[in-house]
This record gives sequence, structure tokens and C-alpha cells, in this order.
Amino acid sequence: MTPAQELEQTLHREIPIAHEMGISVATYDGLQLRLAAPITPNINHKCTAFGGSLYSLAVLCGWGMLHLKLDEAGLHKHIVIQEADIRYLLPVDQNMQAECTLDKTALQRFLRTLKKHDRARLALKIIIKHKDQIAVEFSGRYVVHG
Amino acid sequence: MTPAQELEQTLHREIPIAHEMGISVATYDGLQLRLAAPITPNINHKCTAFGGSLYSLAVLCGWGMLHLKLDEAGLHKHIVIQEADIRYLLPVDQNMQAECTLDKTALQRFLRTLKKHDRARLALKIIIKHKDQIAVEFSGRYVVHG
Repeated sequence: MTPAQELEQTLHREIPIAHEMGISVATYDGLQLRLAAPITPNINHKCTAFGGSLYSLAVLCGWGMLHLKLDEAGLHKHIVIQEADIRYLLPVDQNMQAECTLDKTALQRFLRTLKKHDRARLALKIIIKHKDQIAVEFSGRYVVHG
Repeated sequence: MTPAQELEQTLHREIPIAHEMGISVATYDGLQLRLAAPITPNINHKCTAFGGSLYSLAVLCGWGMLHLKLDEAGLHKHIVIQEADIRYLLPVDQNMQAECTLDKTALQRFLRTLKKHDRARLALKIIIKHKDQIAVEFSGRYVVHG
């Protein structure tokens, strides 16, 4: 099983709402993670994606990215979302895909701090596109600790 | 059926994830709305409430408050969440309750603008408490239009 497949299993097993949302790992190449979710279980009264589902997909995309990078570094730590902000720019009326692209330098700095202090913070930006336009901008501050 | 019961039915009927989360209307007195959700369907891998569920409960509490106030004013409009920020202060390991308390003056100003321009914005603060302490602070900017 690939780390991306393991991540998908973890999300479904440990977070029932992620399972209900139908979240899957679309792609992972070491620096970019894309999580997908179908529109049907995540719909709202206006037949577009529920704002809470868009948020959940984004926050899990950042969590998943950290989970994968910590695994690769052989570190088993707690990942906690501390604060986040989200902007809804366009309605999303089809299947959703959140993408998180890591900054290599920020990651290396984060891992160094984590190894030294057993605690580090990382800010991650996640976007959700709709027909090649940015529909949602999410920014989350995560804390990782031993 | 009371307006609060109608709101609960609307959430369950039109937002499948709200149904999966088990959201209910706890109290509504005209100026404060409390939405509740059980911990079990909203749990995460650490046996505390999933950050996405806390966000969804909060964003729906604000949406529900606006829905009720527009109904009372006889206005049938679209309510859209435009942007939000959330701070997680304490983990929540029991049933959740989000509360939104309206500022009467801000509401009156908002309704006047809405009647005049068929469009208005309102910022709402929602908190989720855990054992009498604020565990989550949410601030959402909603847009209402015809």
C-alpha cells in the first residue's frame, strides 16, 4: 500500500465525517497533495458545495500533507489545527479537489524546529479550484508536538 | 411547528452532512441561537471533536440565525458565507454546542441596508464552549441578497 492509500484509509477509519464526505486521495507527489470529494454527500440547499464541507476538505488536506511528511521523516507526532481562515470566492457545483503545495524551505525549517524542540508550527495554504479558477482559499496554522 | 424546529428540519433535509453530524437546535430565544451536535459522529483520531465538524456547526449556527431573523422579517433571501476565521482554543471531547448571540443594533442596521439595496453583509461571532470555557471562536462574514 502506498503512503497516499494509507492516508486515505486513516481518514476513513478515524474520522467518520471524512468517510461520510467520501474523501479520497487524488494525487501525491511528495510536494503536492490533492484530496477529492464528490459533490453529492457535500451538497447544500443551493445545490452547491456546503461551506463546511469545503472547509473540512481543506483542513484535512493540510493535515494529510503533514501526516505524510512526518511519516517520511520517521516522526510520529500529534498534528493539531490551531487556527484557520477561509475565503469563498466562487460557488462549487461539481466534485471538489483541494490542493496543498509545500514550500521545501519552510518544511525543512519546520522539521529542524520539531526535532530540536519536539514542537513546531507550520502555516499551510490550500486552494480548491472550480473550472481552473480558485474557488476557495484556505490558510491553516498547524501545530505539531510529541 | 416552531421556527426553531423548522430550521432543524431544513438543515437535515437540505444539507446531508448536517444530518450525518446529528445537528439539532438546542435553544432559540429571538436573540440567541444554540445548535448542538453529538460527539460520536463528529469524532477524530484523537477522540476529540473533528475541527471540520466544529467549523460546520459554527457556520451553520450563523446561517441558522440569519435564516430565522429573515423569516421573522418576512424576507426570503439567499444567505451566503463569504469568509470566516476560526480559532481552536481547547479540545472538545463531549457533545458540542455552538452559540450565536445577535447584536440588536447591528441587526437593525443590516435589515435596513438589505431592504434598501437588496443586499447586505453581517459579521457574526459564534462560540463553542467546553465545560464553561470558550473552546472555539468563530467569526463569519455572511452576505444576504435577493
